[in-house]
Amino acid sequence: MHIDNIHKPSLVLDENKCRRNIRFMAQKAMNSNVLFRPHFKTHQSATIGTWFKDEGIQAITVSSVTMASFFSIHGWHDITIAFPLNFREIDEVKKLAEKSQINLLTASYEHLEILTKKVKFDAGCFIEIDTGYKRSGVEWNDYEQLMRMIDIINKNNNLRIKGFLFHAGHTYSAQSPEEIISIYVDSLLKIKEIKKRITSPGLIFSAGDTPSCSVVEDLSGIDEIRPGNFVFYDLMQHQLGSCRKEDISLAVYCPVVDINYKRNEVLVYGGAVHLSKESITIGDNGKKIFGEVAFLAENGWVFPEERIFVKSITQEHGILSVPGKLIRKLKRGELVAVIPVHSCLTVDLLREYHTLEGRIINDLSPK
Amino acid sequence: MHIDNIHKPSLVLDENKCRRNIRFMAQKAMNSNVLFRPHFKTHQSATIGTWFKDEGIQAITVSSVTMASFFSIHGWHDITIAFPLNFREIDEVKKLAEKSQINLLTASYEHLEILTKKVKFDAGCFIEIDTGYKRSGVEWNDYEQLMRMIDIINKNNNLRIKGFLFHAGHTYSAQSPEEIISIYVDSLLKIKEIKKRITSPGLIFSAGDTPSCSVVEDLSGIDEIRPGNFVFYDLMQHQLGSCRKEDISLAVYCPVVDINYKRNEVLVYGGAVHLSKESITIGDNGKKIFGEVAFLAENGWVFPEERIFVKSITQEHGILSVPGKLIRKLKRGELVAVIPVHSCLTVDLLREYHTLEGRIINDLSPK
Repeated sequence: MHIDNIHKPSLVLDENKCRRNIRFMAQKAMNSNVLFRPHFKTHQSATIGTWFKDEGIQAITVSSVTMASFFSIHGWHDITIAFPLNFREIDEVKKLAEKSQINLLTASYEHLEILTKKVKFDAGCFIEIDTGYKRSGVEWNDYEQLMRMIDIINKNNNLRIKGFLFHAGHTYSAQSPEEIISIYVDSLLKIKEIKKRITSPGLIFSAGDTPSCSVVEDLSGIDEIRPGNFVFYDLMQHQLGSCRKEDISLAVYCPVVDINYKRNEVLVYGGAVHLSKESITIGDNGKKIFGEVAFLAENGWVFPEERIFVKSITQEHGILSVPGKLIRKLKRGELVAVIPVHSCLTVDLLREYHTLEGRIINDLSPK
Repeated sequence: MHIDNIHKPSLVLDENKCRRNIRFMAQKAMNSNVLFRPHFKTHQSATIGTWFKDEGIQAITVSSVTMASFFSIHGWHDITIAFPLNFREIDEVKKLAEKSQINLLTASYEHLEILTKKVKFDAGCFIEIDTGYKRSGVEWNDYEQLMRMIDIINKNNNLRIKGFLFHAGHTYSAQSPEEIISIYVDSLLKIKEIKKRITSPGLIFSAGDTPSCSVVEDLSGIDEIRPGNFVFYDLMQHQLGSCRKEDISLAVYCPVVDINYKRNEVLVYGGAVHLSKESITIGDNGKKIFGEVAFLAENGWVFPEERIFVKSITQEHGILSVPGKLIRKLKRGELVAVIPVHSCLTVDLLREYHTLEGRIINDLSPK
């Protein structure tokens, strides 16, 4: 990449690491005999989508109808929209379903009742179950509601029951990889309980958070996985234990603007409109941080011997807190690599990747 | 506005309220005999810029070189870039300075030393001082450094000294309007002290946070104000006491997707990629919230008798916590208005306004 061409905060992608992450997850799914239906909401890009095709992937997950339409245009014809259907977009879904096999999501009996009335086209239907995250979906052990829902789908001429979908987002609050595994095992036990009561044949159980899919070695207890974030990973995933630092394939290159030697602080051009306001807390005193800094190296970035964090951000300003012996390594006008806390949100803000080889990728789904 | 055309999270702007906010601030500046140089980083739009022209505004503030170039193209020819100059963009600034009068910002003696070497074109120069926010700038009472900086600017053939610029961003941590006023008064005392020591004629003192400019009645102690957020205001400003709820001119209309009567929660399509992850804490127990809900009314939105908050958000999901007696008023497939916590970040994410009259405004500065 021509570093000289980077004048303002820019998303830099290490394609090798990214492809390695994709390959790793595809292999794990294959070894576990689980369908890999990656979530494309993290990268949102048609080009990066082709890197999944290179690994044999044919079915995907998205989080919006707009994204489904975008990837349908870009040659994906088996798409799950993993967000309870927003009825205001029914006409767009109808058009979409003419070109691609679409799976919709329903999250309650009342939602499904409306869905059955609105859907006048062929579509798969997943029922969202809540296994503990408490965001959306039918409580996993409300068997009566689940059976009524399967029943109404089975009686409908347009919808075909696909199975149960859940997102164990509570893994993001885990304090250790062991806790992630225990949440995963808990989901498996719940699936077993459901299977005891609901014996319709062919029901797919689809799970999908990146922490579980990364940490659990053998995923064979479920039928389908839908992780998304693993394609890049980020600081949050690293803190959870989902990845090593060297697996993170994305950074925001930010210009160093000014240095305050008295306070050991550095002002970079790179703020909330580049990184997002997502934060994590680190250390025993629970310090909130918005990114971690690496130095530019011949082929990407390397982490310094002591950690440097983005301690605060406003719209365009990022303030780094830099250990005394490292601050002299930073020069005004040079670039640093900032590893984002949450790559999904950072990508959505910047919407253009520079690969280390100098290629620009900006074919992202509209919002 | 044709509500029926809104299918997904959309920024809705009440033009009347917005113009009223602009007029109010322009009048206050005029009454205080202070130059009004509004910050355009909040709205970023060429069209909304013309609403300022309608009030006689000719000089503006921006936070990036990209934004300066954008507004220069759109007929603004007196622009302060209120971010210490990022030297990697010097060529773009040079081009810009050929068309518009540009004021640059410098934040330390070392930064200025580089600036004087790099700038080979005519530009105004503000020295950033830090009056207590501790983000960037020379400490206000480091008179020796300030005088050395004025000296080096005066000796330079390209830079012309404009004065001192500060941003009292610590007003955002104020607990009451009285505390905002006391921070403002403190700034005035500091300006007096500086004026005692630095007596060069014609130096402008430029201040600019929305809380101070909104709460302080008479701004005559300073020379120039640069507020930005007041054009829309938001929940954060309302909580600070900068505005009334009816002054907030912006909302995100979000589709209601599903309702959980057991938990009194509502899922809306509208998450971190629409509202941003900015939060405020409310109430005595310090509950974190990501937006507040209003109901759609004939000509905009109205707040319900009890407050409804966005209690959590992920990429596309917003979860509302709804008091029991209000939940029956919400229907799947309808829209609610979500007032953002921080309008600057929400606008930057959605980048397209729908006015209540149905006009689309999407001529925003690139990032």
